[in-house]
Amino acid sequence: MPKVVDHEERREEIVQAAIEILSTGGPSMLTMEAVGRKLGGSTRMVNHYYPSRGDLLADLGPRLRERWARDLQAVDTGSADARRRLRAFLVWRLAHDTLRRASERAFLALLWVPSEDAASASAFHERGSEWMRGQIALRLAGIVAHEDVDSMVDILQTSVSGILVAAEENPDRWPPEREVAVVDRLLEMLGLAPEKELVGTRTEESEV
Amino acid sequence: MPKVVDHEERREEIVQAAIEILSTGGPSMLTMEAVGRKLGGSTRMVNHYYPSRGDLLADLGPRLRERWARDLQAVDTGSADARRRLRAFLVWRLAHDTLRRASERAFLALLWVPSEDAASASAFHERGSEWMRGQIALRLAGIVAHEDVDSMVDILQTSVSGILVAAEENPDRWPPEREVAVVDRLLEMLGLAPEKELVGTRTEESEV
Repeated sequence: MPKVVDHEERREEIVQAAIEILSTGGPSMLTMEAVGRKLGGSTRMVNHYYPSRGDLLADLGPRLRERWARDLQAVDTGSADARRRLRAFLVWRLAHDTLRRASERAFLALLWVPSEDAASASAFHERGSEWMRGQIALRLAGIVAHEDVDSMVDILQTSVSGILVAAEENPDRWPPEREVAVVDRLLEMLGLAPEKELVGTRTEESEV
Repeated sequence: MPKVVDHEERREEIVQAAIEILSTGGPSMLTMEAVGRKLGGSTRMVNHYYPSRGDLLADLGPRLRERWARDLQAVDTGSADARRRLRAFLVWRLAHDTLRRASERAFLALLWVPSEDAASASAFHERGSEWMRGQIALRLAGIVAHEDVDSMVDILQTSVSGILVAAEENPDRWPPEREVAVVDRLLEMLGLAPEKELVGTRTEESEV
């Protein structure tokens, strides 16, 4: 079934081109023409897979989440310790590779999508953040009390997102090490740091 | 000197129009023509005050910071307690009024400013976040040890910024009360909550 694989690849390429256009040029640059041009093809080629920009945007979210899930398999097998897995997830979430950082910028850019595609963008944001929240919640189970998971997810999710914004706004001042240092300090203050990195200022329920 | 006042007012109006255009339409919508149109005037009128978009962008930051400083005077006289002042600042920073929220969106939109204005946008981000950091640091003095101020500023600044992004991405799920609840929970976990709102889970150095 080589034909099927080919189509699948083409869709991945189109989605990737869309992410790069959103990330670098901003929301208004994302047109079917621009995507076609970026891939060295025609608008018609893009339209063959996605009849409209709304359709393309609607496919962006599911494809990104699939990639993230694949990524995470490698991240998560790294440790048997729940606190280390939580930290590894948050560091992964900081998106230090170019490809992932581009998709984080694309996420933000969709805040200004034209009104005809606002519903797609809104679904994208809603499901994307739901997915991220779910991943954090999963890694908090067994570390914090059940009733505290939601508020802890709020804190961790917004913090990491704010670090990404700071790094985008002031890239010179926010090298990856500083981003990770903030996550580590925050985990420490929240009593969620992996054992070795705990400072002795608080009583810690050792979960490990 | 009524003529001088008039010019000043005109500049404020132009800057405000620019913020609204950036906030709603996104970065690429900010042209001198669009600003003129929004004010019911001509491009020439805008050019009289700001010869180029770069000049306009360069004036955006200082004017916003002046407004913020004025705003804050009212916020800060509200309490003599350092922890309350810190909380009040962070809640103010959440920008619950339409005008301020628009300027926060404008801040983000400048991430995609065309390259000829990238230097203005970058200065805008750098000085804007420096200003905010300075304000937080000021309110942390006397609450946390001198050597912890910087890392605490990092945590608080990025958290609030992440809350703003969450609220922009999912406005239905992030009413103002939820935003404030995250700030309160975070302050509590960091040992920075005002006395009355402390829960009895940690030892607290009473500073008040």
